[in-house]
Amino acid sequence: MTKQAADAARVERILVPVPLGERAYDILIGRHQLCEAAGVIAELAPGARAAIVTDDNLAELHAPALESCLHQAGIATTRLTIRPGEASKSYACFVELCDGLLAAKIERNDLVIALGGGVVGDLSGFAASVLRRGVRFVQIPTSLLAQVDSSVGGKTGINSGHGKNLIGAFHQPALVICDTALLDTLSEREFKAGYAEVVKYGLIDDAAFFDWCEANWRRVIAGGPERDHAVATACRAKAAIVVRDEREDGDRALLNLGHTFAHALERLTAYNSRRLVHGEAVAIGLALAFRFSQRLGLCPGQDAGRVAAHLTSVGLPSRLQDVPGGTGSAAEIVEAMTQDKKVKRGALTFILAHGIGKSFIAPGVPADEVRRFIESELAGA
Amino acid sequence: MTKQAADAARVERILVPVPLGERAYDILIGRHQLCEAAGVIAELAPGARAAIVTDDNLAELHAPALESCLHQAGIATTRLTIRPGEASKSYACFVELCDGLLAAKIERNDLVIALGGGVVGDLSGFAASVLRRGVRFVQIPTSLLAQVDSSVGGKTGINSGHGKNLIGAFHQPALVICDTALLDTLSEREFKAGYAEVVKYGLIDDAAFFDWCEANWRRVIAGGPERDHAVATACRAKAAIVVRDEREDGDRALLNLGHTFAHALERLTAYNSRRLVHGEAVAIGLALAFRFSQRLGLCPGQDAGRVAAHLTSVGLPSRLQDVPGGTGSAAEIVEAMTQDKKVKRGALTFILAHGIGKSFIAPGVPADEVRRFIESELAGA
Repeated sequence: MTKQAADAARVERILVPVPLGERAYDILIGRHQLCEAAGVIAELAPGARAAIVTDDNLAELHAPALESCLHQAGIATTRLTIRPGEASKSYACFVELCDGLLAAKIERNDLVIALGGGVVGDLSGFAASVLRRGVRFVQIPTSLLAQVDSSVGGKTGINSGHGKNLIGAFHQPALVICDTALLDTLSEREFKAGYAEVVKYGLIDDAAFFDWCEANWRRVIAGGPERDHAVATACRAKAAIVVRDEREDGDRALLNLGHTFAHALERLTAYNSRRLVHGEAVAIGLALAFRFSQRLGLCPGQDAGRVAAHLTSVGLPSRLQDVPGGTGSAAEIVEAMTQDKKVKRGALTFILAHGIGKSFIAPGVPADEVRRFIESELAGA
Repeated sequence: MTKQAADAARVERILVPVPLGERAYDILIGRHQLCEAAGVIAELAPGARAAIVTDDNLAELHAPALESCLHQAGIATTRLTIRPGEASKSYACFVELCDGLLAAKIERNDLVIALGGGVVGDLSGFAASVLRRGVRFVQIPTSLLAQVDSSVGGKTGINSGHGKNLIGAFHQPALVICDTALLDTLSEREFKAGYAEVVKYGLIDDAAFFDWCEANWRRVIAGGPERDHAVATACRAKAAIVVRDEREDGDRALLNLGHTFAHALERLTAYNSRRLVHGEAVAIGLALAFRFSQRLGLCPGQDAGRVAAHLTSVGLPSRLQDVPGGTGSAAEIVEAMTQDKKVKRGALTFILAHGIGKSFIAPGVPADEVRRFIESELAGA
């Protein structure tokens, strides 16, 4: 790269700081940042070795470019691959990855680099958090969902037979690189699913960003500067909440807007990605959270209508009826909700909204109220 | 207990604070504190449920008393038992314990109570650190070794085929209860092995405490107020180092005095407790660290002699020749040392001493120098 081109790349890179004291880090966002990242990583950990954790699909797609740039920056690498898909967030894969990192002689000053989507990030972040009681890790998310959600904030973990993400750690990354050009290789379905989490930040507390999404979503998908802006806005919003409440003792729960519904739907469709992927479940959950708020007399019907209409324009589902194969009865959906990690002593906690950009935490919502709402939804009311 | 007796118990309880900011906690030391602890736990986590993790031996010995006191204090309990011994610090036992805690419906505001020695504390502390991304845990150490070393400072973990304690977390307890009366049930061998770690604190940076140990060790074993004083002094010393360097980036390495030798000896005796237990390996390691310091011209021979003489008086081993079945050659011992977690980029780091109470971190000690020293030790020089 010429100096001029390098300068241009630098200008186009957006830096979002996550000021978490001794755990502070930066999120770098822009097109073609993968190779740029190598230099930043080398500065972060001079002389370190890096274990790149990725999945079988991405290993061929992006890993060689990253490795070549890291080698040029003087960082020796080892590559560890996992099978793609949620099933890799298991105890067995965790043990295998830990032993793989030990066999690769990753020491306390070395790095684990997660190159992949949420599964790769969650699993390898957790392994990094416990390897020799904690080594640094770098997130290079390759899906939109991971860029705007799971790679930022330090939540890592695996699933148990008792539920999702029940075993894990809060382990902040040392650096997050969001190369938005990597998203060009995503399927339309996968990109749109990630987009649901982008819209979520507008709905939580940024009505102006929701307006912007309504006007610019096509350009976000197309991959122009609007995509970088959307990713940066999402990361900035998430970072602000994480800084206020790193360990989810309070405000961070706002990020669960739409998620109590979404997790229940994912459970009822047996985490079968042919029927429903996480972002699609979130899209339905967002629409439901606003309609539920409307039904409770908290939110204007106009706002709930705008939310559903925007998701529909984008091509995302927004109703229980949109789930292929159906969801089960209202009672089954409520039962699936009460298995959620966010349940405290049996009470249901929801994120509700007084309108677009005005969401809030509502603990102790009666299960009966939820069931009646879902019944009316299923009846198509 | 009458009010008078309760007051007396309170007076005899020694409180050692561990001021680690938002992770601060107290160590409570004294005879018959097990039941007293229940009230403190109830204050710490009102309304919480507690999972008591213990081993098959201790389950009958101490668990019923603890459970009965916790129930009186309004804390519901579940008991989970593991098999005694180092083999329980495995991935398999970790997975089983995590799933056991989930099955017991331990939530984020609940507690894990480790009632046992180092194995119980290390395993259950690690499980607590990752359960729902971290729940609080309380250490109730039942061995002298655990009371003065492993229960304080937040190091938790399990072993991998690649080495000991390679997978784990820094997860500080919320409370440590050292009931020194529990130590009455230890075998003489186990008590003395723990005593090696007590003496260590005098050798690190407290010459006056080493003098006190020489004068009072019989009363420490007998179980009078001297035992409480010894445990409290050790805990206070460990807490001070942990507060200076929680994650072992510097000073905390001083706690490894004698341990580079000790870990090698444990490895070479295949962690066979019939041949050598950890504290006995540490006793030999302490004597070797001082004789090695003497050989390097760093430490007066008189001090090295006093260390070995004290260990011998107590009935602890202090020479390589004291290991039943032998240790292997000098080359094998050095090889076993280089497999240690404390090796940074191949250089051997030792804790050496300028004299009793004057230890320091010596990075980059040449392996050849170590080998020649061990050869002379094996030759009985």
